[in-house]
Amino acid sequence: MNSFGRLFRVSVFGESHGEGVGVVIDGCPAGLPLTQNDFLADLERRKGGMQKGATPRKEDDIPQLKSGIFNGKTTGFPIMIFFENKNVRSQDYEKQRSIPRPGHADWVAHQKFGGYEDYRGSGHFSARLTVGLVAAGVIAKKLMPELNIEAKLIEAGGERDIEKGIQKAIEAKDSVGGIVECRVQNSPVGLGEPYFDSVESVLSHILFSIPAVRGVEFGTGFAAARMFGSEHNDAIVDMSGKTRTNHAGGIVGGITNGNEILFRVAFKPTSSTPKTQHSLNWDSGKTEDFSVKGRHDLCVALRAPVIVEAATAITLADFMLCAQKISPVLNCE
Amino acid sequence: MNSFGRLFRVSVFGESHGEGVGVVIDGCPAGLPLTQNDFLADLERRKGGMQKGATPRKEDDIPQLKSGIFNGKTTGFPIMIFFENKNVRSQDYEKQRSIPRPGHADWVAHQKFGGYEDYRGSGHFSARLTVGLVAAGVIAKKLMPELNIEAKLIEAGGERDIEKGIQKAIEAKDSVGGIVECRVQNSPVGLGEPYFDSVESVLSHILFSIPAVRGVEFGTGFAAARMFGSEHNDAIVDMSGKTRTNHAGGIVGGITNGNEILFRVAFKPTSSTPKTQHSLNWDSGKTEDFSVKGRHDLCVALRAPVIVEAATAITLADFMLCAQKISPVLNCE
Amino acid sequence: MNSFGRLFRVSVFGESHGEGVGVVIDGCPAGLPLTQNDFLADLERRKGGMQKGATPRKEDDIPQLKSGIFNGKTTGFPIMIFFENKNVRSQDYEKQRSIPRPGHADWVAHQKFGGYEDYRGSGHFSARLTVGLVAAGVIAKKLMPELNIEAKLIEAGGERDIEKGIQKAIEAKDSVGGIVECRVQNSPVGLGEPYFDSVESVLSHILFSIPAVRGVEFGTGFAAARMFGSEHNDAIVDMSGKTRTNHAGGIVGGITNGNEILFRVAFKPTSSTPKTQHSLNWDSGKTEDFSVKGRHDLCVALRAPVIVEAATAITLADFMLCAQKISPVLNCE
Amino acid sequence: MNSFGRLFRVSVFGESHGEGVGVVIDGCPAGLPLTQNDFLADLERRKGGMQKGATPRKEDDIPQLKSGIFNGKTTGFPIMIFFENKNVRSQDYEKQRSIPRPGHADWVAHQKFGGYEDYRGSGHFSARLTVGLVAAGVIAKKLMPELNIEAKLIEAGGERDIEKGIQKAIEAKDSVGGIVECRVQNSPVGLGEPYFDSVESVLSHILFSIPAVRGVEFGTGFAAARMFGSEHNDAIVDMSGKTRTNHAGGIVGGITNGNEILFRVAFKPTSSTPKTQHSLNWDSGKTEDFSVKGRHDLCVALRAPVIVEAATAITLADFMLCAQKISPVLNCE
Repeated sequence: MNSFGRLFRVSVFGESHGEGVGVVIDGCPAGLPLTQNDFLADLERRKGGMQKGATPRKEDDIPQLKSGIFNGKTTGFPIMIFFENKNVRSQDYEKQRSIPRPGHADWVAHQKFGGYEDYRGSGHFSARLTVGLVAAGVIAKKLMPELNIEAKLIEAGGERDIEKGIQKAIEAKDSVGGIVECRVQNSPVGLGEPYFDSVESVLSHILFSIPAVRGVEFGTGFAAARMFGSEHNDAIVDMSGKTRTNHAGGIVGGITNGNEILFRVAFKPTSSTPKTQHSLNWDSGKTEDFSVKGRHDLCVALRAPVIVEAATAITLADFMLCAQKISPVLNCE
Repeated sequence: MNSFGRLFRVSVFGESHGEGVGVVIDGCPAGLPLTQNDFLADLERRKGGMQKGATPRKEDDIPQLKSGIFNGKTTGFPIMIFFENKNVRSQDYEKQRSIPRPGHADWVAHQKFGGYEDYRGSGHFSARLTVGLVAAGVIAKKLMPELNIEAKLIEAGGERDIEKGIQKAIEAKDSVGGIVECRVQNSPVGLGEPYFDSVESVLSHILFSIPAVRGVEFGTGFAAARMFGSEHNDAIVDMSGKTRTNHAGGIVGGITNGNEILFRVAFKPTSSTPKTQHSLNWDSGKTEDFSVKGRHDLCVALRAPVIVEAATAITLADFMLCAQKISPVLNCE
Repeated sequence: MNSFGRLFRVSVFGESHGEGVGVVIDGCPAGLPLTQNDFLADLERRKGGMQKGATPRKEDDIPQLKSGIFNGKTTGFPIMIFFENKNVRSQDYEKQRSIPRPGHADWVAHQKFGGYEDYRGSGHFSARLTVGLVAAGVIAKKLMPELNIEAKLIEAGGERDIEKGIQKAIEAKDSVGGIVECRVQNSPVGLGEPYFDSVESVLSHILFSIPAVRGVEFGTGFAAARMFGSEHNDAIVDMSGKTRTNHAGGIVGGITNGNEILFRVAFKPTSSTPKTQHSLNWDSGKTEDFSVKGRHDLCVALRAPVIVEAATAITLADFMLCAQKISPVLNCE
Repeated sequence: MNSFGRLFRVSVFGESHGEGVGVVIDGCPAGLPLTQNDFLADLERRKGGMQKGATPRKEDDIPQLKSGIFNGKTTGFPIMIFFENKNVRSQDYEKQRSIPRPGHADWVAHQKFGGYEDYRGSGHFSARLTVGLVAAGVIAKKLMPELNIEAKLIEAGGERDIEKGIQKAIEAKDSVGGIVECRVQNSPVGLGEPYFDSVESVLSHILFSIPAVRGVEFGTGFAAARMFGSEHNDAIVDMSGKTRTNHAGGIVGGITNGNEILFRVAFKPTSSTPKTQHSLNWDSGKTEDFSVKGRHDLCVALRAPVIVEAATAITLADFMLCAQKISPVLNCE
């Protein structure tokens, strides 16, 4: 449920406006050098920084390493990382409690958890939980220094020029979505496990756990459905398995073929749009006009690339351990 | 690896040109009436029947119910269903063994399994394995008679008129892909488990296990990335949770909201195109022209709808058991 | 539920008087030579052969290798092995259906599975299911040729002289239990995973799945509770980790220390005693005298050693894969 | 690895002399009232209090509830509970680092984790980790108020009079072991899952994770191996499934039969005996005399009953959820 992975196992906990959020990483090999500093760059990217369109809520996001590290190296035991919530303004959420926000989990959470859910700022459904994913991703990346995992926002608000897309949102006083593309260089051949644990299967599993994701496609993706087989097939050109084209996105039969891994992830527009909406008030049982309170991104996809990278790194680290391409005890300097 | 599901657990085994293929379903509640006849309609749909563009290989696909059924009802113990392979022509594959077929798993399987893989007709990677999925899907559907799961091919070869798309393939002597759309009516509210087992996560996991799938999108999907938040948000219109629009595809925060579940799956064109290809011969180490032997579909997506339905039913049955909406002992007549 | 193991995963199915019983082994490395002959010796041991006290029901126990093997070697894909039931006499069980046999699962199965269970010869609860365990054990043993796993019946009917214990049962016209001791030589150091997957944890898990097992103890076991710490502690005598004594049974902190692994398993007397019993008739709601029909062992423990070995081998193979001490692709001749 | 359970899932982390230890409970139903106070009684029992023979190290053991609770009730999301380490004296362990303590995990941990393990006070192998188990057990018990789970130390140092057993240890200046017996009243019929998840299997799995456990037996246990079948079989006496005797310990065919669940757990003597020992110094490569430093129990079994109860409650809560006998949303006042 709140855990993911087989040998490299990531579990998240926490709520947006509770004491904090955190992550437990179980199965990390022993001997990996790890300090707070390792996390700062990716955590900063997740915050969205000074970017236009990113949420004005700013948390320090200091990763507190509570277990699994000794003398600056991982021990092979579970690593627990905790992030305190400091910049909390729960009253925003109390006020609008009677209107389950469209696009948010308010209504379904209420039905599923019987009203016991922590609804403040979406509680456990909040994008704040992704801080734990990013932290786990940092560790996964360090386990595979030879891999180059890079995700980029390639489209926002329907525009390839991202600035323009965000500007569109600002002008329309509305939120927009975006598309993140991720590329992985230097993946070994042979990652992925038949039948149900194809690379696409496991990767899409974690990607669709990221709030706001609505679509995932590998290689040529949906466009492949409009190609002829002779166009789409990637001819192998040498004994290393290199292919002339890469329509497959580096994955054939669910298994990496050593070419660049390539996929795209579609993010819907932030549900908390500044625009007035008209939806149900469950106290009155009637629909009404209302505006969402709280501090939000105009475009969640802006902060998404580092989260997509983290999800990718977590998935690949697990596959690498399954394929015995990472040792349970490392010899790092 | 070759198992999927948590409480309703499906495991597949077998090879395209070995003794047969099969499936074990563990966790099916006791008391469900089940006979060979229940399987025939969906198995027939999977075969592609007399459709133009479907493979000329015809197997009887008689499901042999080997365990877990007593007096015509499920017992609560594992159900094993075996399908013998009868119509096997392995010699086709022996001949072209030196050229790993582009788009197929030949090359990666060889690398990953050290040459020990059963390469005949793609072995365990063959679409033949989906016969087990379809059988498990039949059982899952019977467990949820109130649900209406329906998948359709909505596009083939880039054409909304499917006949036209197939005709295009026939004329071009090439293979084509397609897009399958699936809709589920009457899903209860509250299926799906945070954080990592969102409905989209688990569903995409199994969908990407189906051979040839390259993309999955829910609700408005990739197009959502081009909408404003105010457009995309589905306003709730009454206390049942009904929404005015259904851009979310019936899933919010990873959890079903009781509206129609809606998603699309992109299938690449059949890798075994009749066209001459130019690729590596790993005996000579050089690329050369060749044609794929064997009997194949011109458009695998033609047979895909029933497989997509099966994958959906398997996923939802598991979620229904997790949410205690299916009892471990049924009272069926 | 009906599966066990993490990387080397064993699933059982089937019923005592249905079509047959079987096992799926998922995660077996590729390249292991495997033929029907490999199974015969251990399967023969499980049958109890001509031993006094073993059941007169004789099945051929021909292992039908249905998948996962190609050109005489494992492929890395699931291995399904099926055993047909031939020597079935179900009418014995129909007659006594109204009296749930004491010591058997009849009553609990009926409650749990609502009367849908296959009750003939205990159905899925039958010791017949252990044939699949033994088959999986054969494969596990072949994966670790350097290990020497040997289980022996060291006590039957309370007697160290086993013949005498069986004779006691024959004379008393009653059934008896026994104790099996298992020793493993040449286990590597470092198997076992904290916190919950100690070697004792995982081994006892599968051992208690074997019908009739009532106790498991490692090393000095229950007697350790009566020793002083200074007596029980095994002093390490050299840099290889060799200990002067082996009260720990080769496992410290849940992890193998390279010394002999040693444990004992207690089997209760066969529930199907020839003696007249007095128990509930659930049709009449009253207790009455009755005798168990069917063909049974006087001492199930007689056939247990090979099953205990199989359970041990399955467990250790999984730990060996987790510790990367078995490669996913083997180089066997 | 460091997680246990299927639907009620417990994960532990932390080290004896690090920042603290903790537990994450995933899958706890929503709506259960839960405050710090609920934990205090069982945590106090675990500390061993003023008992003779219990460790002089005293921690406050204040459970910090970091997530999963809102307005005094569980939310259905993961509950993280953290316990700070305050009373730490790591220098004791630095001094004796060169001699891996017999009976402890020092030597195997060093081999398995390559020297990166946190060796201070046994690190992750320390009995301190059981504080998280006890906390999870408190929650599990609250989920099943109708069950009565009670474990008692029935033997220490080989004596049924526990005081006498401890006195024996004090006089001998040595440590002793003990036997804990656990009884559960009011368990429903039908808990336990064939084939591999029998109640004994899953319960022994977690019990053998508790440090110092060397044996587990159910009902009559090892003594059953010395009985006749006619003696051991528990005759059913009425339609509720009540049996005349309870040699089975309330579990038949791996499934609860509604009678009292009964089992015993053997604990070895504390490895850290005050006695001088003679073992390997891995710096010199030679054996030598030494004494264990640090603060320890003379009899770990003294503090074990509440841990055994916790392990039992965790296991049963999971089975209850699997059997749908606990709802995912509770209606507690």
